[in-house]
Amino acid sequence: MDGEKTSLRGVSCLVLGGGGFIGTHLCQALLRQGAQVSGFGRSRTDPRALAGVVWTSGEFADRTALARAVEGCEVVFHLLGGSIPDSSNRDPLGDLLSSAVPSLQLLEICRASMVRKVLFVSSGGTVYGIPRAIPIPESAPTDPISAYGISKLAVEKYLALYHYLYACDYSVLRVANTFGPYQSPHRRQGLIAAFMHRIARGQPVEIWGDGRVVRDFIYIDDVVDAILAASIYDGPHHVFNVGAGVGRSVLEVVTDIADVLGRPDVIPIHKPGRATDVPVNVLDIALIRRELGWSPHTDWRDGLQRTADWIRTVQD
Amino acid sequence: MDGEKTSLRGVSCLVLGGGGFIGTHLCQALLRQGAQVSGFGRSRTDPRALAGVVWTSGEFADRTALARAVEGCEVVFHLLGGSIPDSSNRDPLGDLLSSAVPSLQLLEICRASMVRKVLFVSSGGTVYGIPRAIPIPESAPTDPISAYGISKLAVEKYLALYHYLYACDYSVLRVANTFGPYQSPHRRQGLIAAFMHRIARGQPVEIWGDGRVVRDFIYIDDVVDAILAASIYDGPHHVFNVGAGVGRSVLEVVTDIADVLGRPDVIPIHKPGRATDVPVNVLDIALIRRELGWSPHTDWRDGLQRTADWIRTVQD
Repeated sequence: MDGEKTSLRGVSCLVLGGGGFIGTHLCQALLRQGAQVSGFGRSRTDPRALAGVVWTSGEFADRTALARAVEGCEVVFHLLGGSIPDSSNRDPLGDLLSSAVPSLQLLEICRASMVRKVLFVSSGGTVYGIPRAIPIPESAPTDPISAYGISKLAVEKYLALYHYLYACDYSVLRVANTFGPYQSPHRRQGLIAAFMHRIARGQPVEIWGDGRVVRDFIYIDDVVDAILAASIYDGPHHVFNVGAGVGRSVLEVVTDIADVLGRPDVIPIHKPGRATDVPVNVLDIALIRRELGWSPHTDWRDGLQRTADWIRTVQD
Repeated sequence: MDGEKTSLRGVSCLVLGGGGFIGTHLCQALLRQGAQVSGFGRSRTDPRALAGVVWTSGEFADRTALARAVEGCEVVFHLLGGSIPDSSNRDPLGDLLSSAVPSLQLLEICRASMVRKVLFVSSGGTVYGIPRAIPIPESAPTDPISAYGISKLAVEKYLALYHYLYACDYSVLRVANTFGPYQSPHRRQGLIAAFMHRIARGQPVEIWGDGRVVRDFIYIDDVVDAILAASIYDGPHHVFNVGAGVGRSVLEVVTDIADVLGRPDVIPIHKPGRATDVPVNVLDIALIRRELGWSPHTDWRDGLQRTADWIRTVQD
């Protein structure tokens, strides 16, 4: 009807972390596809945005609650993570226990519940570590410099193991730095949301290091399209980079945000660089283009504009 | 004095898992080098073999006991593992909790105690999974088909992280199938010990699959030499394969054991293959040869003979 693929019509889908930034968009997209959507997580960024989603509030580590949520689901989207890259290095064990451990419990539950496919949102920005070549293909070495990245990688390996042992189907999406509406400007993850929120209010922005750190920024709608495409993919590949395939420095991003917001008066405050920040990260997206027929559609400035329109509505 | 390197003379060394097969040999070798040796682990294969070693019985998961054992040590040899490949797949979570989790606790302790170097005995037979090319170099993809291999790999990644964040030095030894005296014939790990014990007594041997599974078998003395060489290595590499670099099928091994024991009357019982068994595993040992000047010295038949001499002394 609306040009979207219809293979998820009527399919029972569970989105773990469905109340977060990517999760909220994914739930909405699944509803548009005609899927039966349930969500599970600690909290919802905007409960009104999840109208039509059967919601369960619960902790990822709560095995019983998780099993109840998974029961009867055909496709599980796993968007839950324990911590964020920087804080994970202050407590690697806490990250492992809150990320890899419950993820493994999840796999056991999915296997017992005969879930058809698990889609795991991994981290294109951290699993590779410091890249030896740019852009980074999926086959590049994976040497994370954060405990966060190690946990994500471990979950990827367990998914592959369950596929090997029990033929549980899965896809791993190694997603780049995602931005767009519903990304909270008040968390430590999500540079564009945080910067935009402050620049829009004429507040100074903190830049870690010299601002020449390069990242691959991708708009949320493109990320959701990639996850949906992977969910109905049936080919031999399991791990896909999801990014714009373009690198932008933090300083460029600040300049472009200021421009979109019409606030050229940005006050940058330079802070010492963080050990968890790789100097550059740009993903090679040739594989996903070829296998899933996916490519990023949203123009960089359009994405920033749409994010800016939303961020103006956010309360301080 | 005896031609061995003397750089470990007077150095305070802790061997975690010092009571096991490799651990017992390592403790003895460290004592011969003039190191001050302490050992920590659940139990000792042969307490008499550890004369001169300050021994602490403890659980790996007991953080307090572990911290006490590490205190004041300069070099820590980490030989502890949670489970074995086959059983790990029956309880991946148990493996993660008993292997990667306490290993991460260990790294925190080593960092706080200013340990100079950590030597980790990883698994050359499982971290790579099903190889795409033989022999397998250290740079090959790491796609384990056992939870055991995933845990070992995670520990390797955490060691690299602690090196990156805190300059904690380390070496990873990806050791092939080790055999020799003190390897219990009554455990599920250690094919040669188990086969030898049964063949020596005229008992049938169970062969998983068709017996064409190929492994890289290396004699214990060579493994210990590699660990010692790595402990005093100061170069840029951190991950080394330790193997004979030669592949032998299980059937060949059975024939050679029968020959060494003078028991041509072996009764093989073929059992179904196990999902955790990769079809072939032979390690590329070019890197360790070049960087550590190490190479395997023990002739295959000599190693079998020495193992046979010991196995005859083992009680049923």
